[in-house]
Amino acid sequence: MKEQVKTIRDTDEEARRLARRLIRGARFGAIGVLEPETGFPFASRVLTGTDVDGTPLILVSGLSTHTTALLADARASLLFGEPGKGDPLAHPRITVRTRAERVARDDPAHARLRARFIARHPKAALYADFPDFAFFRMAPVSGSLNGGFGRAFVLDRSDLLITSPAIADVADIEPGAIAHMNADHPDAVDAYARGLGKSKKTGWKVCGIDCAGLDLVHGDDLLRIEFDAPLEQASKLRSTLAELSRTLSNNRGVH
Amino acid sequence: MKEQVKTIRDTDEEARRLARRLIRGARFGAIGVLEPETGFPFASRVLTGTDVDGTPLILVSGLSTHTTALLADARASLLFGEPGKGDPLAHPRITVRTRAERVARDDPAHARLRARFIARHPKAALYADFPDFAFFRMAPVSGSLNGGFGRAFVLDRSDLLITSPAIADVADIEPGAIAHMNADHPDAVDAYARGLGKSKKTGWKVCGIDCAGLDLVHGDDLLRIEFDAPLEQASKLRSTLAELSRTLSNNRGVH
Repeated sequence: MKEQVKTIRDTDEEARRLARRLIRGARFGAIGVLEPETGFPFASRVLTGTDVDGTPLILVSGLSTHTTALLADARASLLFGEPGKGDPLAHPRITVRTRAERVARDDPAHARLRARFIARHPKAALYADFPDFAFFRMAPVSGSLNGGFGRAFVLDRSDLLITSPAIADVADIEPGAIAHMNADHPDAVDAYARGLGKSKKTGWKVCGIDCAGLDLVHGDDLLRIEFDAPLEQASKLRSTLAELSRTLSNNRGVH
Repeated sequence: MKEQVKTIRDTDEEARRLARRLIRGARFGAIGVLEPETGFPFASRVLTGTDVDGTPLILVSGLSTHTTALLADARASLLFGEPGKGDPLAHPRITVRTRAERVARDDPAHARLRARFIARHPKAALYADFPDFAFFRMAPVSGSLNGGFGRAFVLDRSDLLITSPAIADVADIEPGAIAHMNADHPDAVDAYARGLGKSKKTGWKVCGIDCAGLDLVHGDDLLRIEFDAPLEQASKLRSTLAELSRTLSNNRGVH
């Protein structure tokens, strides 16, 4: 145990930001659950999204092993962060320990979760409303971030969630703000993807906005853009996005 | 439970073959383990390979959560099969329930496992011999294959392992046969990748040979080629590979 402690680094803002980008920019992840009766640890694949407070979401079929397991024992972990080129272990990933909460269809949050999830996963509209499918909010308990060899960090619940008095207000204006950005500011959206997400593609669309940042989608690709600090007022969204654009175009001019 | 049973298809040869290709052609997977003391299900990423009898292998650091967990409770599952384009859930994947067995450095099998693993993951040579790293054989118990929406199969241990009287003999000639194929028959190796693995790349190398097939590597890509049936004699390896080449070049001529 002593040896293990030595390998964990102090959690800094860079680690928190990496963790958030991994979770909030994921299309899918691996879920670890406990199989009913045997208690065997079972790993499988799930589609993922996030709620407006940063809580991970999953959309799952009631016929799957993981859903049966979650209904019997709500403890689950989610592994986020897919490898790219080179050694798969050199790429950052995070395991988030969570407690699963099934979202009933008559839950006031259901419409919001569904809309956010489908904006991120348009093809899920084909089956999201099947009677055996359900959304679960995966309330974070803690996280283990591995930023690549020898770069391990422990995160707590507050590192993984969004804290702001404006969460509900931003959620209210989210649909209109997304439509506005995609219709009237496509160049700004591509500039976010290029300047902050290192993307060379054009044609990115905003698929989510919350107090802590933007989710951008382009076909099978997702990008999470984190603001420097969470919005404290929904009315600051417009100026924050405009300021981000200005900063990026200034940076671009310098290069 | 009744509902679930209805969704499982009868396991046929196509399902077995898909399961084997997913497991044996993987570079990495997600592992599900039980955290010591809490019993929380923990999912993380591991590099994977296979032993000569098809048993999955992992190479892990003793400082990781999953290794600590495996040493306390050997039950673990491995999720194989990475998504490509489109809906991640449309891509096949398999969860293999396993029991982890640590391979000591003085185990007679250690040199063989290490050589096979490093051939598949050349960069792992940098750390495989660090004192805190170890190989585990992950003895399969059963498997849950998801071949895409609505295509679920249950597999048992015998579906996932290689059965042949020639396993040890083929293991003995494996290093020489790999060297021979890569040095003297590069066109045949590319033809396997093209004809059986649908690859358009050239420059593939054989990195593993066992009674049931070949592992091919090309940079970050791996391909598993399964023979129609496992070799029953090591002396049949040469003629099996030659026959495979002939079949592929005939097929090519016809098109």
